[in-house]
Amino acid sequence: MSSPEIDRLIQLLAKLPGFGPRSARRAALHLIKRKDTLLEPLAASMAQAAQSVRSCSVCGNLDATDPCSICADDRRDRSTICLVEDVADLWALERTVSYKGVYHVIGGTLSALDGRGPEDLNIASLLSRVAAGGIAEIILATSATVDGQTTAHYISDRLEDMNAEEGGQRPAGPSITRLAHGVPVGGELDYLDDGTLSAALKARRPV
Amino acid sequence: MSSPEIDRLIQLLAKLPGFGPRSARRAALHLIKRKDTLLEPLAASMAQAAQSVRSCSVCGNLDATDPCSICADDRRDRSTICLVEDVADLWALERTVSYKGVYHVIGGTLSALDGRGPEDLNIASLLSRVAAGGIAEIILATSATVDGQTTAHYISDRLEDMNAEEGGQRPAGPSITRLAHGVPVGGELDYLDDGTLSAALKARRPV
Repeated sequence: MSSPEIDRLIQLLAKLPGFGPRSARRAALHLIKRKDTLLEPLAASMAQAAQSVRSCSVCGNLDATDPCSICADDRRDRSTICLVEDVADLWALERTVSYKGVYHVIGGTLSALDGRGPEDLNIASLLSRVAAGGIAEIILATSATVDGQTTAHYISDRLEDMNAEEGGQRPAGPSITRLAHGVPVGGELDYLDDGTLSAALKARRPV
Repeated sequence: MSSPEIDRLIQLLAKLPGFGPRSARRAALHLIKRKDTLLEPLAASMAQAAQSVRSCSVCGNLDATDPCSICADDRRDRSTICLVEDVADLWALERTVSYKGVYHVIGGTLSALDGRGPEDLNIASLLSRVAAGGIAEIILATSATVDGQTTAHYISDRLEDMNAEEGGQRPAGPSITRLAHGVPVGGELDYLDDGTLSAALKARRPV
């Protein structure tokens, strides 16, 4: 059809999430027509990201430095760890600009269907961080899906086991919390699913 | 939020057609997690395309060679030129594997609203190709939109003027044709718009 260079570009673009062969062709043309303003800068930016971005050895975040800029930031509260499934969730929480602790990215959820067990997730490294001490609170911010909640449950069990093992007196381990369920801000009750509404009712608070 | 390298990648990805900030973030994460299998090959392929792909000086097609592989192909019928708005249309026609002539990409349509006149399109170069002789047929394959049809009309006028100017005898200029309108293959009459149906009726053919 077209030149091998363009065919290869289309093939690779088609592997982006949300792209198929047709949108990949459209994107390839769009890029080639904007060689100086988009294609070249994007190629350079990708090469740069491929070369510099790596996983943080402490929390699993993606950054050009290791430890990542959040773990390395002295102004963050290192006694609070927010556990998230994915870097995308970490980014979402950072966009709220309301969380000042640090993170731990476990890299997915437990899933019987997909055959993902605890050893496939970044859980051991979380337990070592907790064992090293100095952690006051762990916020389990997994998704409100069955797999997400199963994962949160499993991790909270493991953390409690750890506390129990550390001597009969049960020394004060980190407290374990999770995100509130309730009515989304801006949401209309009428359009809300029953589960969320009933959770919001159960967790009602005094005005 | 994240590192400057990732932010820049997201910013550039958001400029792809069909992408917004959210899908660009998703694509960036997808790419970074597949560094060896996708991010690096895609960066290399983009750099390669930026370096090698150019417009064909004869027909306006995009290719790594100039003239493009279609113009340079001896097996193509060079006496038939198919005029298309965009390289994407040329690709679509090539995918049918049923056209054996060459092309001319004019690079858009005339548009009073967007202020695009004849001088903004690749029309002068078409007229020179025709003036050079040896062209038997020009297929006007512009879109079946108002702008597309206006453009086809304008170009067919210009071509006829050219024939008229070439002496009182009116030497045989190229014949000018356009794509048939009709029922799309696989289309149900019931769902077809009235304009297409009435065009198909007018252009009915003996069985």
